[in-house]
Parts: sequence; C-alpha cells; structure tokens
Amino acid sequence: MSLVVIGSVAFDALETPFGKTDKIIGGAATYISLSASYSVKPVKLVAVVGDDFPQSDIALLQQHGADTEGLQIKQGEKSFFWSGKYATDLNSRETLVTELNVLADFDPILPDSYQDCKYLMLGNLTPQTQRLVIQRLVNRPKLIVMDTMNFWMDIALEDLKTTIEMVDVLSINDEEARQLSGQHSLVKAAKIILEMGPKYLIIKKGEHGALLFDKKQVFFAPALPLEEVFDPTGAGDTFAGGFIGYLAATDDISFENMKRAVVHGSAMASFCVEKFGTERLLNLSQEEIEAREQQFADLVAVMPATVAAS
Amino acid sequence: MSLVVIGSVAFDALETPFGKTDKIIGGAATYISLSASYSVKPVKLVAVVGDDFPQSDIALLQQHGADTEGLQIKQGEKSFFWSGKYATDLNSRETLVTELNVLADFDPILPDSYQDCKYLMLGNLTPQTQRLVIQRLVNRPKLIVMDTMNFWMDIALEDLKTTIEMVDVLSINDEEARQLSGQHSLVKAAKIILEMGPKYLIIKKGEHGALLFDKKQVFFAPALPLEEVFDPTGAGDTFAGGFIGYLAATDDISFENMKRAVVHGSAMASFCVEKFGTERLLNLSQEEIEAREQQFADLVAVMPATVAAS
Repeated sequence: MSLVVIGSVAFDALETPFGKTDKIIGGAATYISLSASYSVKPVKLVAVVGDDFPQSDIALLQQHGADTEGLQIKQGEKSFFWSGKYATDLNSRETLVTELNVLADFDPILPDSYQDCKYLMLGNLTPQTQRLVIQRLVNRPKLIVMDTMNFWMDIALEDLKTTIEMVDVLSINDEEARQLSGQHSLVKAAKIILEMGPKYLIIKKGEHGALLFDKKQVFFAPALPLEEVFDPTGAGDTFAGGFIGYLAATDDISFENMKRAVVHGSAMASFCVEKFGTERLLNLSQEEIEAREQQFADLVAVMPATVAAS
Repeated sequence: MSLVVIGSVAFDALETPFGKTDKIIGGAATYISLSASYSVKPVKLVAVVGDDFPQSDIALLQQHGADTEGLQIKQGEKSFFWSGKYATDLNSRETLVTELNVLADFDPILPDSYQDCKYLMLGNLTPQTQRLVIQRLVNRPKLIVMDTMNFWMDIALEDLKTTIEMVDVLSINDEEARQLSGQHSLVKAAKIILEMGPKYLIIKKGEHGALLFDKKQVFFAPALPLEEVFDPTGAGDTFAGGFIGYLAATDDISFENMKRAVVHGSAMASFCVEKFGTERLLNLSQEEIEAREQQFADLVAVMPATVAAS
C-alpha cells in the first residue's frame, strides 16, 4: 500500500494582505506529503534540495511521516526558491522571484524500497520529470494522480500531453482545464481532457469548490465558506495530498470512494489556507479533520421533503 | 396562500455569442412569475407596461398562471426596454440601452383581491416602489423576499437599506453582497447584512451556485455544470421565482424547507439559461423539473464510507 510522492521541496517567501514571511518551507511535495500523512504513513518522498535546506525542515517532514530516502541533498547547490505576492482579494498572485536552482537538472532517483509503490502522486514538475518516475517504476502503480499547471501548457504542451496520457487522474484548476481543452464550458472541457488518456479529471475551482469527472459521471464538492482566508499557498497541493492519501489508506479507487477522497482533500485544503504556509498542517487532530468533513457534508445536506413530512 | 409578485414586465433585446434577439418579453416579474407558476397558481402580478406591449404576451403570462389584475397598461406610453450584450464567456455583460418609459413613475397599485397576500416577492425595482407595496398591504405577509441590484447601492443606498430592513429574505449576488457589506469574505458579508434586518440572506454566485444564510447556519446549493449556457438573462429572477413559489406551495418557511426551495430555484434557473429569454420556461413538465432536482441531489451525494462498507 505504499504511497510515493514526487514534487518540489523548496523555500517560499509569501506576501498576503495579512502579512509576509521570510523564506519558509514550501513546495508541492511538502504540502502533498504533509496532507497525505494524516491518512497514510510513510509517504515516500522523491525530491531534491540544496545544502542550504535546514536539517530541521527535513526532520519536520520525517516527523510528519515522510520517508526521505528519495530526498536528494545536492552539496554546493541551492534549493528551489519561489516568492509571490497576493492581491487584496487573494484570487490572483504575482510571482516576484523564481530561482530553479537544484530543480534545473533534477534527476528523480527512486530508491529500491520505493518499488512497492501502489499509489503515485506526481506533484507539479516538468512533464518529463514526472514521466521519468513512472518509467522507473518496475510495476505500474495501481493509481497515478498527476497535478500540473498552465506554465507547462504554455511552453511544453506536447510533452505535457505525453505524460497526461500515462496517468489515471489529472488534477488541474478551471482556467487550466479551459486552456488545455480550448473550451470554456467545464463540461465540454472535461470530455476533451478525458479523451487525452486519464480516466478521471479533477477540476479545482478554489473558493468555488472542485469537480470530479469520469466519462459517465460528475461529482461536485463545495469549498467551505470561510470567514478568513489567510494564505492560499499550497491549497491545491494540500487537496491533492489529502485526495491520494485517502485513496491509499482505503485502497479503494471506485468513483464513490473518489468522491469521499475529494471531500477529504477539500477539508484538508480548508485548513491549509487558515494560516501562513504549512503552519496549519503541522498539528491537526483526527477529531478536527472529521469535524471539518462533517461541516462539508452538512453544508450541502438537504433532507428530502417526504422524509421530513413523515 | 396567495403569492404576489412585483417587478418589471418589459422588452429585452439580447445579444450573446450564440445569437441575438429583437425585442422579446422580459423583465424581473416575467421570469419570477413564469418560474413560480410551476409551483403555485395564480401568481398575482403587480407591474406596468405601455400600450406597445402585445396582448399576446399578456395572454402568455395568463396562460402560465399569472393573475394580471395588478398589471397596469398605460395608454400612450411605452414599456420598459433593456438591451444588453454578453461577453464571450457570458460572465459579464454590457448594457446597450435602458429606456425606463412607464417605469419612471410606476405607482404599484394593489387590487383588493391581492390583500390576501401571504408570500410577497419584490423583484428588482426602486427600493421606494418595493417599500410602497409592503406598506399598501393591510396585513404583513408571512414572508417577504426581496431581490435588488448594485445600481441601487450606487445611487440610493440609504433608501435601499430602509427597504431591506423590512424584508425577511434578501437575494443578491456575490459582488452585491461584497458591495453592500464592505467585506470580501462572504461569511463576514452575510453577518453584516443579516444585522441590517433580514432573517435570511441568499447570495447567488451564478455558475458557482448559491449560499443561504441565517444567523446560525449556512447552506450551499451548487449550480449544475452545464454543457451549454445559451443566455443567462433572467436566471437570477427565475431562481427567485422558483424559490418563493416552492415556499408558497409548501407553506413551510423553516430553514430546512428553504434549502429545498434554493435547490428548486437553482434547478429552474438551470433550465432558463438553456435557451434565449423565457423560451425554456414556457413548456417544462413536472417530470423534467423533478429529474433536474434529482441531478442536483446526485451531484453532491456522497455515500458514507461506513454505509458503503456494510
């Protein structure tokens, strides 16, 4: 039942209307593995950092269930760094700095102990790097989930499509679904994208929830209306980590169970945005998580009129 | 159990990416009463048109359950006319023409037969005109629902607040909720608006669904992901008509029943946008409506893991 996660482990510097941070731990694989760790342990990490990455941050990942055998530490090199500033409504952000550093020539080496991989989460990276991980696994995992972003649609579309064809679940946001399909209607976009290879498509709509499609069905999970959104960084990755963690823990990839995984991922993401960076993901209790999932269920629950009347 | 609806009955000329119309029947009260008529008849209409308004359109309203005793026909005057053009993604529209005509000095006269009003729907009009209707009813209705728009927040905010204070349910869209409250977070916006007088607030988010708040609870109804949205005109009014029609038919204003009314209103609105103007609202069957409501229920339905496992 092993879960392998590949993606960036990095430094982020964030600025929101509510404050700013110096370099803090960030990166897709960081959020994914922290989020997944509430469902399943270990989370086998494939990533690369420089020798500037603090041992204490690596220990933090380990304390939260990460197996870091696949985490490469490049001596004399620097970790990936991203800095961004959010607009007042938090709905758009400006990238201030992107320093690829160690990510520029990342070769994802899989330790032998990762070959039992049954669930594979491909966090956002170059499509070629994501593909290499699939190719380096001797046995194809039971489920491959892939996250990506518009950047690769802009500069490496054909390469991206080659990787998309190899995965089971693609997770992107609404604007990316429109860009990838050339269709404004998300229903039409889903049909086109599902012809590209994946059996399932998740369209993340941020504060407007998430849609799960296969060729026959659609499911919608709302986002929880929150009083305060403090920092949206990592919300999509936290969603993805919660999603695949739930599936790995239950080892059930039916559409019905994927719905539950989407709700669980949405709940995890709703925690993530409540504080800066990874902070809110570090000390959650199962009780808090279950209570939050119940809030999602209550939000859309309607008692049938016939039952109510009886 | 009488339902009274006040609002515009008008001519619209519409242009969307999918085509354009000449002057066709439109107006808030038209959409509200057509939509409500699938739940309750008659719908007692309070509105005004000019002598240019075709008898055939009045007959159309009557055939769909409207009591037109309160529909004034002003000889020698012209009907309210609005013309608009939608952007490619249908999410924004430009007003090309607004001719107030008969609406400029509309005095909403209530026939005696309307004094049994139990459910009152105030469609978008000047806040003063909406207020006059409440004042002219001898007995306060059991439930007053009010729709309005940002235009009145811009030019008549204090007047608007006076009317808002008198109603039970306020129905506005997300941008209007933000403008009225001065808060970006819809949860915070709802708290502030519910302090202004209404017991319930509906925030319409178009393709992203609708929220229903009271001081203690929140309910979310998604919008149905549609393959084609042809013309969004009237969707909000169709929602409101479905909402109050459902409540009037069931005569139950509990929060639980309001949830069902929101789902019903959302289903009615999902039909409205499938064709130009009122066309799709003219020949719906109860079977179609129930099937659509079931689609809304299925869209968010998650079987609990424990039930699925048993």
